[in-house]
Amino acid sequence: MIKVTVWNEFLHEKIHDEVKKVYPDGIHQALAKGIAGDGIEVATATLEEPEHGLTEERLANTDVLIWWGHMGHDQVDDAIVQRVQQRVWNGMGLIVLHSGHFSKIFKKLMGTGCDLKWREAGEKERIWVVNPAHPIAAGLPEYITIDSEEMYGEHFDIPAPDELIFVSWFEGGEVFRSGCTFNRGQGKIFYFRPGHETYPTYYNPQVLQVIQNGVRWAAPSGAAVPVRGNHQPLEPIANKG
Amino acid sequence: MIKVTVWNEFLHEKIHDEVKKVYPDGIHQALAKGIAGDGIEVATATLEEPEHGLTEERLANTDVLIWWGHMGHDQVDDAIVQRVQQRVWNGMGLIVLHSGHFSKIFKKLMGTGCDLKWREAGEKERIWVVNPAHPIAAGLPEYITIDSEEMYGEHFDIPAPDELIFVSWFEGGEVFRSGCTFNRGQGKIFYFRPGHETYPTYYNPQVLQVIQNGVRWAAPSGAAVPVRGNHQPLEPIANKG
Amino acid sequence: MIKVTVWNEFLHEKIHDEVKKVYPDGIHQALAKGIAGDGIEVATATLEEPEHGLTEERLANTDVLIWWGHMGHDQVDDAIVQRVQQRVWNGMGLIVLHSGHFSKIFKKLMGTGCDLKWREAGEKERIWVVNPAHPIAAGLPEYITIDSEEMYGEHFDIPAPDELIFVSWFEGGEVFRSGCTFNRGQGKIFYFRPGHETYPTYYNPQVLQVIQNGVRWAAPSGAAVPVRGNHQPLEPIANKG
Amino acid sequence: MIKVTVWNEFLHEKIHDEVKKVYPDGIHQALAKGIAGDGIEVATATLEEPEHGLTEERLANTDVLIWWGHMGHDQVDDAIVQRVQQRVWNGMGLIVLHSGHFSKIFKKLMGTGCDLKWREAGEKERIWVVNPAHPIAAGLPEYITIDSEEMYGEHFDIPAPDELIFVSWFEGGEVFRSGCTFNRGQGKIFYFRPGHETYPTYYNPQVLQVIQNGVRWAAPSGAAVPVRGNHQPLEPIANKG
Repeated sequence: MIKVTVWNEFLHEKIHDEVKKVYPDGIHQALAKGIAGDGIEVATATLEEPEHGLTEERLANTDVLIWWGHMGHDQVDDAIVQRVQQRVWNGMGLIVLHSGHFSKIFKKLMGTGCDLKWREAGEKERIWVVNPAHPIAAGLPEYITIDSEEMYGEHFDIPAPDELIFVSWFEGGEVFRSGCTFNRGQGKIFYFRPGHETYPTYYNPQVLQVIQNGVRWAAPSGAAVPVRGNHQPLEPIANKG
Repeated sequence: MIKVTVWNEFLHEKIHDEVKKVYPDGIHQALAKGIAGDGIEVATATLEEPEHGLTEERLANTDVLIWWGHMGHDQVDDAIVQRVQQRVWNGMGLIVLHSGHFSKIFKKLMGTGCDLKWREAGEKERIWVVNPAHPIAAGLPEYITIDSEEMYGEHFDIPAPDELIFVSWFEGGEVFRSGCTFNRGQGKIFYFRPGHETYPTYYNPQVLQVIQNGVRWAAPSGAAVPVRGNHQPLEPIANKG
Repeated sequence: MIKVTVWNEFLHEKIHDEVKKVYPDGIHQALAKGIAGDGIEVATATLEEPEHGLTEERLANTDVLIWWGHMGHDQVDDAIVQRVQQRVWNGMGLIVLHSGHFSKIFKKLMGTGCDLKWREAGEKERIWVVNPAHPIAAGLPEYITIDSEEMYGEHFDIPAPDELIFVSWFEGGEVFRSGCTFNRGQGKIFYFRPGHETYPTYYNPQVLQVIQNGVRWAAPSGAAVPVRGNHQPLEPIANKG
Repeated sequence: MIKVTVWNEFLHEKIHDEVKKVYPDGIHQALAKGIAGDGIEVATATLEEPEHGLTEERLANTDVLIWWGHMGHDQVDDAIVQRVQQRVWNGMGLIVLHSGHFSKIFKKLMGTGCDLKWREAGEKERIWVVNPAHPIAAGLPEYITIDSEEMYGEHFDIPAPDELIFVSWFEGGEVFRSGCTFNRGQGKIFYFRPGHETYPTYYNPQVLQVIQNGVRWAAPSGAAVPVRGNHQPLEPIANKG
């Protein structure tokens, strides 16, 4: 059983009518329902909960954390961000969705600005699989079409991803590296682009399939945690120094 | 259930007494026993069988092929090599062990010479995990010690691996990229260094653990096989050319 | 001074009027004129020359080989292909253009099928820089627009490139990894997509800039050629095996 | 002309006699002398200077910054660290040496803990070239031997490097990824392991060659700085959203 926590700032859904209409219970609930089952157990957490719902205990019981944030990035407490970063380093998987590219946690883990081009025009996005052997592409066709989405365009200011799985085509003329994996410490990170709050993207079965695949891929593998610091020699040394 | 075929040239074990003593039933049988069970089903095939045991039917029923060869590389029929390559491109996983670095199939898939330094001195090898988040390192300590092995040293003439999982330290002063992954077409490839025929390396539980992990990692993921060739437009084109 | 040889099969230009009109002296001459100067010295070679113009001597005097081929891939002699491969392994840079994706030499070096989607509709291509720090992107704007080109679409059946520099957007709805680097042995390889024979792509100053940058990047760096084979220990071994 | 600034905390050399003996003018002066000339112009900066010698003006006039720090990591002002990070993102190259692995700037750019195993036993290190085609390996033999160095061992807690160029063998039984490259924004980063303050490592001509090669590799390439943020469509959109 993989234990997932879906974290959502849960702000737009309470303030903006057009978002409320799409996600009446919040993006986190749509995601939770969409990926639960089949060996995946899902809890949720939001910005307004104490410690944003990301207590030490909650994180200790999370194999994979999914992150959706946008207008409230600055309201996330630095101490909680550091706690999440430490937990990723210790092996928790992290899936960062859409506007989470600008979250404190993603920027801290990437070491870059994470900025990009964007446009809200409800245009067509076609997400092409460029790494069909990757488990995150399991069960998918050659591409996913989303009729209306926000555009994200290159240059996306991230480190060269360890693996590039998806590249998006946008009606307005841009491309974007939409599915990227990274390792940080013992933790695996998957960034996945789609999911603007005004569109029903997180009800799309193929989008949910990708996120579910991502959960399975990002779950901790269980190698020994490396010991670091002063280290006794494993072989005799003819000491010279 | 993952269907594995262990292919072994099975020559040394019939000719050289010191090898026969270590692997009386052949390296393939030791490997098969060592990794079977727990969702993995193992068959074997050898050089002397018709079509080297790698018939179309056998390959169609193989999720992951394990390859051990050494003195008989040249005896492997080019048509069979091409068949295996095609099957890898179509999604079969491939685990190449030790002296398989010089097999026709590995060289064809790498596009390089695949040469390296070597020495048979029964020296100590210590295989360090450099990617502890990778599923192929699951369940392992920080390093595996093998008391007596053949040395393989850099420069190992392979493409830069997609992922580097293990680096070996050798008593005689060399290092080696001992665990490397590559993708070719839909297929995942894992090269793992240890396993000289005169040492009981394939009875080592940690070595077997790595190979079993490799099998799980290399099993096909099941994304759509891409369609290639002449392609109708998905969007209207203002034809100019 | 970097010594470049531009190899072109030089067939379309002699047979097809529309190609002859665009490249009256052949694609190789257009390329040669377009990249020569500023420390780059260019020679040409074509399919019909003895040994396709790629004699041992010519290759020994080539730092970077540029390859354009299409309808004549099968006419390239296997022995010459092997010679070029060996020379790349020994450090010669190789730039493969457009339909060269299906050349014998590229397929041999990649170890994959190298197939892709294609369409001749004269549509618009926009080549986005996704790795602006790379020397192959030097002097370029954020993207290059080509008004009429053949479409190439994913999945492009290559190994995951060492570096991804360009991604193309096509009017008809596809994307393509248009600028990719690979290492094989001591040699550096750069694949660059544009350049269908019926369009004046190789007169485009930005396209020429990319190829010139590629030449500088792919020129041999001059590290020691590794020695391989049986290797004496560098440190004392307590021989056990 | 490439403008280099060598930054050194310059503390050990003033406090510890054994270090003063090796680097009487400071590590920065040894490095500056060792790499200057041949198109490289070198300035220095140290911790005790105002703004640690890293003023806006100084950084604006630096193509590549070399960083050596150890006991004074915490004394580096966070505002200066942020300024250096921004300058790297804007294209300045950065070479981080030895104990700089634990500097604020390196950790910020990596997004990981950057910890490792270490031991001060004056043991032998052999730095193997595993990427002989890379310009940072230009002019080097197959390996560099350093008779006495501090040991650094795996697991080195960094992201998977974009390119792995060197792997070290240590007498005491460990290995280490000693030469690693990374991109962050427009900037190129090279981490190079050797250089403990008590050993004359930075007088070793091969070590200096690597650092000089690193300078040439990390110098800015000059592609357009990407524009990010709200972006007008490049193609007509059939607006639906």
